[in-house]
Amino acid sequence: MIKNDLFLQALAGSTLVRPPVWIMRQAGRYLPEYMKIREQYDFFTRCRTPELASEISVQPIRRFHMDAAILFSDILVVPQAMNIAVEMKPGVGPVVPDPIRSLKDLQNVVVPDVQKELDYVFQAVQMTKEKLQDEVPLIGFAGSPWTIFCYVVQGKGSKNFEKAKAFCFAKPQEAHQLLEKITQTTILYLQEKIKAGVDAVQLFDSWGGLLSPQDYALFSWPYLQKIISALAPAAPVILFAKGAWYALEEMTSSGVSALGLDWTLTAQKARQYCGEKITLQGNMDPSRLYSSPAVIQKEVREMIRSFGPSHYIVNLGHGILPDIPLAHVEAFVEAVKTYTE
Amino acid sequence: MIKNDLFLQALAGSTLVRPPVWIMRQAGRYLPEYMKIREQYDFFTRCRTPELASEISVQPIRRFHMDAAILFSDILVVPQAMNIAVEMKPGVGPVVPDPIRSLKDLQNVVVPDVQKELDYVFQAVQMTKEKLQDEVPLIGFAGSPWTIFCYVVQGKGSKNFEKAKAFCFAKPQEAHQLLEKITQTTILYLQEKIKAGVDAVQLFDSWGGLLSPQDYALFSWPYLQKIISALAPAAPVILFAKGAWYALEEMTSSGVSALGLDWTLTAQKARQYCGEKITLQGNMDPSRLYSSPAVIQKEVREMIRSFGPSHYIVNLGHGILPDIPLAHVEAFVEAVKTYTE
Repeated sequence: MIKNDLFLQALAGSTLVRPPVWIMRQAGRYLPEYMKIREQYDFFTRCRTPELASEISVQPIRRFHMDAAILFSDILVVPQAMNIAVEMKPGVGPVVPDPIRSLKDLQNVVVPDVQKELDYVFQAVQMTKEKLQDEVPLIGFAGSPWTIFCYVVQGKGSKNFEKAKAFCFAKPQEAHQLLEKITQTTILYLQEKIKAGVDAVQLFDSWGGLLSPQDYALFSWPYLQKIISALAPAAPVILFAKGAWYALEEMTSSGVSALGLDWTLTAQKARQYCGEKITLQGNMDPSRLYSSPAVIQKEVREMIRSFGPSHYIVNLGHGILPDIPLAHVEAFVEAVKTYTE
Repeated sequence: MIKNDLFLQALAGSTLVRPPVWIMRQAGRYLPEYMKIREQYDFFTRCRTPELASEISVQPIRRFHMDAAILFSDILVVPQAMNIAVEMKPGVGPVVPDPIRSLKDLQNVVVPDVQKELDYVFQAVQMTKEKLQDEVPLIGFAGSPWTIFCYVVQGKGSKNFEKAKAFCFAKPQEAHQLLEKITQTTILYLQEKIKAGVDAVQLFDSWGGLLSPQDYALFSWPYLQKIISALAPAAPVILFAKGAWYALEEMTSSGVSALGLDWTLTAQKARQYCGEKITLQGNMDPSRLYSSPAVIQKEVREMIRSFGPSHYIVNLGHGILPDIPLAHVEAFVEAVKTYTE
């Protein structure tokens, strides 16, 4: 039994007096205790070493007592397991030295034995659950097939992922084959992650919003729907598709427990698209944490008044930025925890 | 009298048998004749030399016969005139060596004598009009105050312009002072540009969509509205605010003649937000030009069937990409010119 299960209650649609709160990238670079570990071990060593990944996952909970932990990992462990090399270059971000651009490249991409190739993730889940001692639930995550596709075709981060799009538009058949392989792997991966102990799963379609609604319906949504349908009975699923506001209506009836929102949506517009019943998660602009703690607290309270307190999970509209002062994060979390109507 | 005034008719809301077509960044890097000039002269020399700017502006018209020309220039000539140094670094983009971050920095920023400081632009307008020989109308443009602010505070291009936002949220008073100075300069600049001969004006709020609706209402929209109100009687104004779909309803009643759309909007959603009367411009994903010419033509025809043919201007949803083959641009323009219901 999880002692503070507010987050799971919100996902189940219970009536609450205050919403739960967690922060995307809460285990990461704004935390001095994380930076100490970062000095000693490179990025994928931190992901691949269960002792480190679990320690990093619980650090923000010890300091700020959010209502949920999220496993420290990366969406790109999935293509690594599929026989696509991914490196993390400091100051650059993820780099795929041999990006997938042709049918020949595609033939080397496998749907792996997930239990073997990603065992280190499942061990990290178990170790994090032990360290959490049932204080709060643990979230596991994966990237959407389209978002993984963007990286492995483009070869690195990009503003518009033109090479990934060019591949879709010039070679749609090959693109769908690659998306299908990523989808199959992701389903196996998340099923194992749930077995290993995560209490909920979040799907990140970080680059979904780069597609037109018509192309989203071709290259992203069908694959997300497959994953959601394969998982939804086993664990609650949260879908966060940054920028894909135009697909929210369709997502509402997909079987997800909650929809993550970026900061371009007001509560009113979000409810108009999603209805009253589904749980929404978000959505303060991460840059808004540069405001003074007093302003942050005022804005959090306004956000809860517009969205919640029920059917709502407080979060940012994207990952926390590395240079946000700890006192500002504290103000954000505290404003939720002390919220009264 | 302009011989082909289809573009101006669309802005005036006339009933048409086919919409006009032009392409954002049509004067630029995908054109071999532009690349020849680029080999010889650096970016701001091309902007500052009326002979070059006017030659570049008419190049795409000679080759593809779009229904409007747009003056070759840059939104950052405005901050340059305001005593803020801006350099163009090849492979990097615009760089502001001394970004504006404090009240002291702000004091060096002036509202200039626009006629003197930006005379080269007005000369380029006149020279372009001569070269066009009244074949098609000429569009002049400026960046929105928020978008200019992003560059001069951040110091260079950025995915999220966090430093610009941090300045707004940590020092809102100073931010508004800078935005006000940019607004005043932009009004004077565009009024002179209209006097010099441009037939319409487009405002680019390229980074508007990075703000939440609440912050857009604070830091971008009021300044755009001021500019629109100051110009709208003298020339038709097109507003293109990339990503700011949430503000379209308000923009519709601002006095603009047309609203530019990025590719995240279907015609149906756009009309739902903007009504039937205002002219809409856009909005194919620029990456969609990687498709085969046959697919491009099919998609252009579908786009016109959804949006037009009246109250509509065909364009991309953002600037054309540098590596698009000429035959694909040809297919895009031809599909519009040969359109029949």
